Amino acid sequence: MATLQLASWATNLTYADLTTGVLAAANNSLFNWAGCAIGGFAFQPAPQIALQTTLSAFSGPPTSSIFGANGTISQGFADAQIAALVNGIASHVDDYDDTHLETIIHPAGPVASALFAIAEAYGPVNGTDFVTAFVAGVEAECKLGLSVTPEHYDVGWHITSTVGSVGAAVGVGNLLKLNTTIMQQAIGIAATQVVGMQEFFGSDTKSFHIGRAAQGGMIAALLAKNGYTSSLQGLEAKYGWLHVVSTRENATAYFDQLGHIWEIEKNTFKPYPCGIVMHPTIDGTIQLSNETREKGLDIGDVKSVQLRVNPEVMILTGKTNPQTGLEGKFSIFHAAAIGLLYGEGTPSQFTNDVVKNTTVVEMRKKVNVTEDESVPKDAAFVTLEFEDGTKLEKHVEHAKGSIENPLTEAELKKKFMEQVALAIGPSRAERAFEAFTEIETMMDVAKIRGRY
Amino acid sequence: MATLQLASWATNLTYADLTTGVLAAANNSLFNWAGCAIGGFAFQPAPQIALQTTLSAFSGPPTSSIFGANGTISQGFADAQIAALVNGIASHVDDYDDTHLETIIHPAGPVASALFAIAEAYGPVNGTDFVTAFVAGVEAECKLGLSVTPEHYDVGWHITSTVGSVGAAVGVGNLLKLNTTIMQQAIGIAATQVVGMQEFFGSDTKSFHIGRAAQGGMIAALLAKNGYTSSLQGLEAKYGWLHVVSTRENATAYFDQLGHIWEIEKNTFKPYPCGIVMHPTIDGTIQLSNETREKGLDIGDVKSVQLRVNPEVMILTGKTNPQTGLEGKFSIFHAAAIGLLYGEGTPSQFTNDVVKNTTVVEMRKKVNVTEDESVPKDAAFVTLEFEDGTKLEKHVEHAKGSIENPLTEAELKKKFMEQVALAIGPSRAERAFEAFTEIETMMDVAKIRGRY
Repeated sequence: MATLQLASWATNLTYADLTTGVLAAANNSLFNWAGCAIGGFAFQPAPQIALQTTLSAFSGPPTSSIFGANGTISQGFADAQIAALVNGIASHVDDYDDTHLETIIHPAGPVASALFAIAEAYGPVNGTDFVTAFVAGVEAECKLGLSVTPEHYDVGWHITSTVGSVGAAVGVGNLLKLNTTIMQQAIGIAATQVVGMQEFFGSDTKSFHIGRAAQGGMIAALLAKNGYTSSLQGLEAKYGWLHVVSTRENATAYFDQLGHIWEIEKNTFKPYPCGIVMHPTIDGTIQLSNETREKGLDIGDVKSVQLRVNPEVMILTGKTNPQTGLEGKFSIFHAAAIGLLYGEGTPSQFTNDVVKNTTVVEMRKKVNVTEDESVPKDAAFVTLEFEDGTKLEKHVEHAKGSIENPLTEAELKKKFMEQVALAIGPSRAERAFEAFTEIETMMDVAKIRGRY
Repeated sequence: MATLQLASWATNLTYADLTTGVLAAANNSLFNWAGCAIGGFAFQPAPQIALQTTLSAFSGPPTSSIFGANGTISQGFADAQIAALVNGIASHVDDYDDTHLETIIHPAGPVASALFAIAEAYGPVNGTDFVTAFVAGVEAECKLGLSVTPEHYDVGWHITSTVGSVGAAVGVGNLLKLNTTIMQQAIGIAATQVVGMQEFFGSDTKSFHIGRAAQGGMIAALLAKNGYTSSLQGLEAKYGWLHVVSTRENATAYFDQLGHIWEIEKNTFKPYPCGIVMHPTIDGTIQLSNETREKGLDIGDVKSVQLRVNPEVMILTGKTNPQTGLEGKFSIFHAAAIGLLYGEGTPSQFTNDVVKNTTVVEMRKKVNVTEDESVPKDAAFVTLEFEDGTKLEKHVEHAKGSIENPLTEAELKKKFMEQVALAIGPSRAERAFEAFTEIETMMDVAKIRGRY
C-alpha cells in the first residue's frame, strides 16, 4: 500500500494544506538551495565538467537555467534534463546544502533541481503550485528515508540520491497534476533507479548522485505522464524498492504520517561546507581558536588536539590524509585543523591549496580521535594541549545548524550572499536573494532567471 | 583490486587478443542485438513513448541512430545519450535478446546501445576497434555478474542493467582509449548508478533499465575522460558496488579469468520473445501441439496441462493472469497456452490481443505447475491430459537456444529477418543483415546507418 498511499497523498496535496511553518521551511530550503547551486557551479570543477565539457554537446533547446552559470545564454541554459542534472551537482558539490537530520538526507537538491528545470521548460507555473510541488517531493523523500533508516544508510547507500529520484518524481508529478495511478507509475520508474554509494564521498561523483537522481525522477514523471508503465507497488512489492535496498519491512508507519508530521519543518541548514558530523568539531575548534588568541596563547604551540565524538564521525569522515578540497570535506582531522588555524569553516578552507598547505597538514597530524557512543552526533568534546602543558577544553552540546541551534534568518541570508556574490557580484546577488525568497508569490516561477 | 584489475585488462585489450570463437560470438551478439533493436522499436510502445513523446524534446544535435525508427532524419536520430537510452529500451522490450545463462544477463543491450551511439557521434571508428570495445564491455558485465551470482539476483535486482552500466562504461572507455586510471574512475561513476529491480518485469520499465544503464555507463566514460573523479576502488571498497548490492565477498576469482575464459562465447540467443525460463515449456508444448495434430486429437479437448519445472520458473514468470503482452512474457501459464494453441512462440503470440483472447485465457487456466529442484532451468516435463483420458508427455532436456541446443546460423538469420523485415521491409532488412554482420570489416562503423 505504500506506493498508493504516497501517490494518493501527493496528488491530492494543495497549497491550502501547507501550514505557516511548512511554508517558512520551504522558503528557507528553496533559497538555501539556490545559494548552493549558484555558488557550487561557480567554484567547483564538477558541475562545469559535467555541463561544459561533457553534456552541453547533447543539449536540446536550452529552456532551463544553470543557475550558477554567469554568462551568455548558451553557457547559462540547457535542456531540462541536463539542467536538472547540472543544478543537482552544483547544489550539492560544496556539501553546504540542507540536512534532514534523522535520515541525513539533503532534501532540497533532487526535488528543486528537477522542479526548476521543468517549470522553466513547461511554464508558466504559479508560485503557490511550485511550492506545493516542492513540499510534496521533500515529504516523499524524507518519509521514504525514515522507512529504511538506519539500515539503508548503514549498507553504504547515499540516501539523499537513493530517495531523491522518488522525491523528484513526486514533486514533478504534483506539478504536472498527474492522477494517483499515473503518480504510482512515476514512483515506480523513479524507484528502480537507485543512484549513489558512500564510496564516492569526497569525489565529484558524490554530487553527480544528486543530479542524476533529479534527472531520473523528472524523466520518470514525464514518462509516466505519457503512458509508460511500471508497477503500482514499486515500493512495497517483494522485489521493489523497500525490500531490495533495505532489510527493513513494513514502511506504512511513516506514510501514515504524511500531512500530519511535516518533515520539511525539521530541515536544517549547514553553516560549514562539509560532512555534517564534522560540524560540532568545527564549532569547538573555532571557539578554542578564539580563546587561544584571547588568552595570548599561540596556535603554533598546540601539541595535540583530542576529539571525543560519536563513532559515526569516523565512519563518514575518517579521511586522515585528504589530498583535495573535496576529500577535506570528509576529514574530521581537516575540520579540527582549519577550525583552529583559520577560526572559520567556509568554502575557502576546503580548497585544494588549503588541504595541501604544510601548516594545515602538520596540524592534522596532531589530531587524535576517540570514538564514544555516548556522544550524540551533533556534539563534540575538544581538548587542546599546548607545549607548555596548558589545556583548553570545549564541549559543544549542539552544533550550529542543528535543530536546537539553528542558523538565524540573518545567518542564512549571509550564507546565501557570500556564496552568490562571489559568483555573480553583490548587486545581482541581492536581486537573486529577493527572487528566491519570493517564489511563493510569483505569478510565474519560469521567469525567475530574469529577476537577477 | 577488482576495479584496477578490470580497468587494466579492459584498457589493454586489443583486437589481436580476440580468438576466432570470440569474434564469431561477438558477431552473432551484435547482429542479434540489431534485429531486436529494430524490431522492438517498431512494434512496442515503450521505445516510442520514450523517444517521440518524451525525450525528443530534449535531444541535442541528432548524431546517432534510433535503429528501428523508419522515417525522416528527425524521427530516426537523436543525440548520443538519448539514442543509447532508446536503443537500449528497443533492444530489450521484446525480451527476445541474448542471454548469458550462468548469470541470466542479456549482455549485448547495454554495451551495444552505448557503443553505436558514441561511434556515430564521435566517429570514424574502425570495425575492429568497435568489436574490441564491445567484447571488453560484455566481459566486464559477465565477470561482474558472476561475482555476485546468485545472491544479487535473488535479492531482486535486474542483473542485466545493474552490471550493464559498468559494461557500457568499460566498452565506451575502451573505444575512447582511456588509460587505466581514468577507466577506474569511469567504472566508479558507472557502478554507483544501480538501475533495475525485478518488480518491473512485465512492464515498460523493464526495458528502461537497459536503456538507462547504457546511457549511465556512456556518460560515466565521458565524464571520467573529462576529468570527473570518482574512486579507484568503486567495485571492491567497503561501500562500493560489490558489497552494497551483494552479500558476496571477494570477487577476484572471476576477474582473474579475464581473457582466459571468454564469457561472450557462452552467449545464447532467444528463440522466443519472453522470459528465458519459459523456453523449455514452449518447446515442449509446441512439440505436443504438433503431436496432437498428427495423432488426430484436438487441442480443444485438452483437460489439463501439467508442467514440472525448476522453482525459479515460478519466481520469475509466475504471473497467472497476465493482462498485457508484456505481462504475458512473464507468465509460464501463457507460455504453455500459446505453445499448444499456436504451435509457435513468436512476437505475435505476446500481443495484448492474444493475451486477452478467451481461448488463450481458458487454456491458461488448465495449466498446473509443479516445482521441482531436480529439473534444470533449461528443461521441462510437460504432460497433456485429454477429456477422453489420453495422455501425451514430453521431456525437454535442453531448451532450444540453450548452450547444448543453440540456434543455428540459419535460425539466427531467420530471427533477424522476421523482426527487421516487418519493421523496414525485406530488401532493407537484407541490407541491414549484411551491414550488421560485417561490422568487424567496416572502415567506419559510424556509417552503418547509410548501408540499409
